[in-house]
Amino acid sequence: MSPQSSPVNSFERLQRIESSRIFQSVVIGIIILSALTIGAKTYELPPLVEGSLRVMDNAITIFFLIEILFRLAACPSKKRFLLDGWNLFDTLVVVGSLIPLDNSEAVLLGRLLRVFRVLRLVSVVPELRFLINSLLKAIPRMGYIALLMFIIFYIYAAMGSLFFASVDEELWGDVAIAMLTLFRVATFEDWTDVMYATMEQYPLSWFYYITFIFLTAFVFLNMMIGAILEVMSEEKNAREAQQAHDERDEITRQLQAVQLQLKELTEKIDQSRD
Amino acid sequence: MSPQSSPVNSFERLQRIESSRIFQSVVIGIIILSALTIGAKTYELPPLVEGSLRVMDNAITIFFLIEILFRLAACPSKKRFLLDGWNLFDTLVVVGSLIPLDNSEAVLLGRLLRVFRVLRLVSVVPELRFLINSLLKAIPRMGYIALLMFIIFYIYAAMGSLFFASVDEELWGDVAIAMLTLFRVATFEDWTDVMYATMEQYPLSWFYYITFIFLTAFVFLNMMIGAILEVMSEEKNAREAQQAHDERDEITRQLQAVQLQLKELTEKIDQSRD
Amino acid sequence: MSPQSSPVNSFERLQRIESSRIFQSVVIGIIILSALTIGAKTYELPPLVEGSLRVMDNAITIFFLIEILFRLAACPSKKRFLLDGWNLFDTLVVVGSLIPLDNSEAVLLGRLLRVFRVLRLVSVVPELRFLINSLLKAIPRMGYIALLMFIIFYIYAAMGSLFFASVDEELWGDVAIAMLTLFRVATFEDWTDVMYATMEQYPLSWFYYITFIFLTAFVFLNMMIGAILEVMSEEKNAREAQQAHDERDEITRQLQAVQLQLKELTEKIDQSRD
Amino acid sequence: MSPQSSPVNSFERLQRIESSRIFQSVVIGIIILSALTIGAKTYELPPLVEGSLRVMDNAITIFFLIEILFRLAACPSKKRFLLDGWNLFDTLVVVGSLIPLDNSEAVLLGRLLRVFRVLRLVSVVPELRFLINSLLKAIPRMGYIALLMFIIFYIYAAMGSLFFASVDEELWGDVAIAMLTLFRVATFEDWTDVMYATMEQYPLSWFYYITFIFLTAFVFLNMMIGAILEVMSEEKNAREAQQAHDERDEITRQLQAVQLQLKELTEKIDQSRD
Repeated sequence: MSPQSSPVNSFERLQRIESSRIFQSVVIGIIILSALTIGAKTYELPPLVEGSLRVMDNAITIFFLIEILFRLAACPSKKRFLLDGWNLFDTLVVVGSLIPLDNSEAVLLGRLLRVFRVLRLVSVVPELRFLINSLLKAIPRMGYIALLMFIIFYIYAAMGSLFFASVDEELWGDVAIAMLTLFRVATFEDWTDVMYATMEQYPLSWFYYITFIFLTAFVFLNMMIGAILEVMSEEKNAREAQQAHDERDEITRQLQAVQLQLKELTEKIDQSRD
Repeated sequence: MSPQSSPVNSFERLQRIESSRIFQSVVIGIIILSALTIGAKTYELPPLVEGSLRVMDNAITIFFLIEILFRLAACPSKKRFLLDGWNLFDTLVVVGSLIPLDNSEAVLLGRLLRVFRVLRLVSVVPELRFLINSLLKAIPRMGYIALLMFIIFYIYAAMGSLFFASVDEELWGDVAIAMLTLFRVATFEDWTDVMYATMEQYPLSWFYYITFIFLTAFVFLNMMIGAILEVMSEEKNAREAQQAHDERDEITRQLQAVQLQLKELTEKIDQSRD
Repeated sequence: MSPQSSPVNSFERLQRIESSRIFQSVVIGIIILSALTIGAKTYELPPLVEGSLRVMDNAITIFFLIEILFRLAACPSKKRFLLDGWNLFDTLVVVGSLIPLDNSEAVLLGRLLRVFRVLRLVSVVPELRFLINSLLKAIPRMGYIALLMFIIFYIYAAMGSLFFASVDEELWGDVAIAMLTLFRVATFEDWTDVMYATMEQYPLSWFYYITFIFLTAFVFLNMMIGAILEVMSEEKNAREAQQAHDERDEITRQLQAVQLQLKELTEKIDQSRD
Repeated sequence: MSPQSSPVNSFERLQRIESSRIFQSVVIGIIILSALTIGAKTYELPPLVEGSLRVMDNAITIFFLIEILFRLAACPSKKRFLLDGWNLFDTLVVVGSLIPLDNSEAVLLGRLLRVFRVLRLVSVVPELRFLINSLLKAIPRMGYIALLMFIIFYIYAAMGSLFFASVDEELWGDVAIAMLTLFRVATFEDWTDVMYATMEQYPLSWFYYITFIFLTAFVFLNMMIGAILEVMSEEKNAREAQQAHDERDEITRQLQAVQLQLKELTEKIDQSRD
């Protein structure tokens, strides 16, 4: 029995280690350390500190590689490991860090990948992972509203670049730049400067801005109200169904007892008649 | 029978084609293509591309014309076709595109009508049409609040142009310009620049701005809260009424069974007494 | 009987006229006309129009005076007429317009009172009056939150004028000016300009601004959530109590019927035993 | 009995005085006076007023010291007095005001502590204390969302200082400054100025800003919706449980009466059979 159970035992031991509190804490600690080194590199540092940061960076990369391999080993089904989005993301970020940084192009890419290692915190802390999943679930709900918003932006941008391109090429030159300018107007960022410039040539162009602001604000507000209502009613449906069931259950149980009593009574009377 | 059924069959075939998934997808595709050509025209293009865009634009116009005629033919009641707001809008936009673009005035109008062709996406995709209808339904709910808002703006604008016209003619010249300036203040857009300018002449004019901001923010907030509550209670009323009905139904059904049992029992006792 | 009923009849006739649709519409029309003349005066006008506006203004003042006297005559209790806030407001605005405009000081005051005549629209249209009343009801709910907000502003303003007065006397000179500057920061209006100026002398002053923004935003958000919840639960309490009552009523009615049936049955059995 | 009861009586008298309306009002009045003197000091005042303010300040400090000692004497358990956060805060602020102000460093600190005396208003007015407690309760609910927000800010700041440090050292110099700049972007404060500057070197950097704004706005919105829902469902759970219980209670009471009636009936029939 010992030769058969040996791999199973070692496998179980791997899983026990992986799900242990200490292992999780060490991984989280290393990720935070990795985030700190990334932040530290943005400061001007003495050569000695910079050198030790480089060493630490390599150590962290190796630690992450080992950790991924360890988790792969602890995973019962090797195939399903990479099908999980979080694992795939972890693997890509860690493998990406392994690319040697020679020319300046790759240096930027490599440093960017190191920045994304901070996101590993989300994939490791279960509460954050849950939060992200619930945020992702909220996206499709906003799908058609986002499409409508895009259509409004596109139409106003097309109109804007049609009329105002002659006023300011930098703001209304083509439909893409005009959409960026309209996004700026939607965030109320110096939007009157944009408006006053076009009003000099088209005195009625305030109508364009006011209607745009009202439309986007109105659609946005309704989207927000819709989102609140949808989440609320989902949650409530589940709860109320349960609660109503509980209530009814007790009353119907009592009513069934009454019906049983009546049935027994009827039988007794039948017997007494015989 | 064949001479009679022939027109009916062809009519049904039209309707079947119109409501088919392929036909809808082609129309949506052409609308998106039309939107892209409108966007492309805002860029500076080589003459060859510009020429082919003009050809494509004409092709799209003809396609839309045929599509409208096709949908008119597939519509059982010709009268009701134009009474539907969406069809009327489609027809106007498509017919408007047919106007030949000769002088520069008409060119702008024609291009504007082509921009509105993007809105045909809303009239073709049922989900967007539903969204717009539900947004339109939200407007009357805000009627009196909007009127109150307008009164606040009007009174402050009248006061503003009464006192501040001497400070800055461009911002407070008349009641209309003052309302635009107040809208700018309500969006917090460089409102302190406006305030600091008037405070030099009227040191207490900060009171005017602070009260205006508080009033509009307060009314707006209450409008938003009101909107959330109204939609919520509408939705809930419908749901709760249904749910309460369901619950009550089961209990009353059981109680009726009890009453029936009791009636039968009474009859039996009556019989046994006889 | 005729000499007695005569005053009663005329009194009833007054009331019937006052509450008639036509009378209300005429008053609303005159108020809107009054609002338009106020707006028109902010434009530069030819002397002829200006003269006719002055005549119209006097006519409106006289109309309003007659209307108030008419409503006073139609009011059954003369004492209670002025105790109603809306009537008092109407009377003050109308009587104020009677003050002759001689010197420039009084001209501004007189024009200001004419501006407030637009507010009479609120006191005349019942829906707007209801809206204002419900807004006024929302104020006490925010009382302690407003006090807390004021304490936060006061403490930060005192700190601000203590430390930053040397940086910019115009923004942080005394506690009142500092509160105005903080209100500007709370509306995100060019707040970084204010911050960058103080950061030159106090490099850590960003902490002051960030904590202030977070505190005010946090308190404001909780106030809003609180307001939504309070209004919602008030409304719901009333509705649910009613609904629960309706449901229970039907079930208990049926149960009483069951108990009655049982009582009759028992009596029958008692009789049969005898 | 008199020598024993004497300390008890005097202790009870202390408590009665402390919880009396007059004592509370005097303390609140002195705190407001203290707040006013702090505000007054930020204005330039004639030497006489400044002198009397200094005297008043000392008087207030002594009054607060006596008040704290009095409340300590009235507190039944001396140990628990300082364990209460509000008392500890009060004591620290009052004791801090006793430090003599000699050199300029201590002057600023002393004046700062005097500013915090305004916060004593919160610890003395029960409604404000309750409000603060309920606000503090809302913080943990936002814990993980705040962590997620921080991660988003940190990653974008690291990216920003990686790419844009060469564009503007003042805005993107290191990760801390970049986070401050991103906070500015998140409040929409002149964010396009920041963007246009980086777009000159990186024409696609608008993507960085737009995604950042969407991400933070999206997470913030979901946090707000979550907060509303959580508070709402907490409150409702309590209420509905109570209400459902009340409803069920009345129906089950009636049903028990029915069951009792049936039991008696059965017994009667049993007796009649015998």
